[in-house]
Amino acid sequence: MNTQFHVISTGMQPLEQFVTIAAHIHPYVDAIHVREKTKTARELADFISALVARGVPARKIIVNDRVDVAAVFGVKGVQLAYHSLSAKTVKAHFPSLVVGCSVHSLEEAMEAEKSGADYCLYGHVFPTECKRGVPPRGLETLKTIASSIYIPVIAIGGIQPDNVKQVLQSGASGIAVMSGVFLAKDPLARVKEYARMVKKWGEDFNEW
Amino acid sequence: MNTQFHVISTGMQPLEQFVTIAAHIHPYVDAIHVREKTKTARELADFISALVARGVPARKIIVNDRVDVAAVFGVKGVQLAYHSLSAKTVKAHFPSLVVGCSVHSLEEAMEAEKSGADYCLYGHVFPTECKRGVPPRGLETLKTIASSIYIPVIAIGGIQPDNVKQVLQSGASGIAVMSGVFLAKDPLARVKEYARMVKKWGEDFNEW
Repeated sequence: MNTQFHVISTGMQPLEQFVTIAAHIHPYVDAIHVREKTKTARELADFISALVARGVPARKIIVNDRVDVAAVFGVKGVQLAYHSLSAKTVKAHFPSLVVGCSVHSLEEAMEAEKSGADYCLYGHVFPTECKRGVPPRGLETLKTIASSIYIPVIAIGGIQPDNVKQVLQSGASGIAVMSGVFLAKDPLARVKEYARMVKKWGEDFNEW
Repeated sequence: MNTQFHVISTGMQPLEQFVTIAAHIHPYVDAIHVREKTKTARELADFISALVARGVPARKIIVNDRVDVAAVFGVKGVQLAYHSLSAKTVKAHFPSLVVGCSVHSLEEAMEAEKSGADYCLYGHVFPTECKRGVPPRGLETLKTIASSIYIPVIAIGGIQPDNVKQVLQSGASGIAVMSGVFLAKDPLARVKEYARMVKKWGEDFNEW
């Protein structure tokens, strides 16, 4: 299986800025999450329409929480939080959507797998500006989770190009980056750095 | 066509209180709207599960904005606002859902009808505590709207049992009440009063 590289919107950028970045970086990533928690359904629809209009493939777009918006645009999938509809419900009613669950512990990860999630997003692994004051959950739990469930675990939180290897060595099937890409001075250069590290891991791994 | 009587949650009551009232009043109304704007998908799911568990028929439940929640519970329909997905999109992807649009002008009402809405919710007609400081839109626009579109117009805002007749005489196909029922001292007695006035209108009307 290929190692996955997801990027996630910050909720802090206007449509035009986010979409311009996404239009440049999409060839280097597997998934672009529209995670705009304070936006309405119509605003999310505008974001997705703009992404698609700018050439981002719908099969790379993941919508946070709003299953209805994901369904009407026929995008790749939805990212569910504890406050969302359950993975089981979503899989039952929207079988064409890939369902990811955001988890923060082994217990939640096992629950997500049982509930039919296609993958877990686990974090935050390292300290990050987005979660200032909240202690990072570290690589140890990541290792435990990755070795306890069968579905892919995507790691998030403070991941830099120079710690990608560590994260993947801990059993993650991929990485997800928010501000590390979208708030970077040169998002395209940054995405290429991450992508190179992810690819390098795949090559090294295949040499084993 | 029967005159419709909708009741709408206030967003101010805890689940248990709302569900208890709904469980008592549902036989006297055509639709119960779950309009809990600040609640998450999971919380809305809890509200709807509780309503159904207490005997409120799913075919009387309308969910505000969250088409996904409405779809997975197979309820009657969704109530869309300007910030929601469009009626056209919802009708195309969720054909089993009844779609109501909240409108505030003739222009919006005509747009809703064109977009495929099954009915409009128009208001607020009279001054109401919920819209303090916002001038009511009055019966004149209601008359204009009701005579300009073919889909039913349900009137909302400050409707009391003693002005129901006025509202229906202006061309509304029904009324919707929020605090007038849910925050009443005796919601069941109040619902019966409204229902009696709605029924009386139907009878008087049939005598014409």
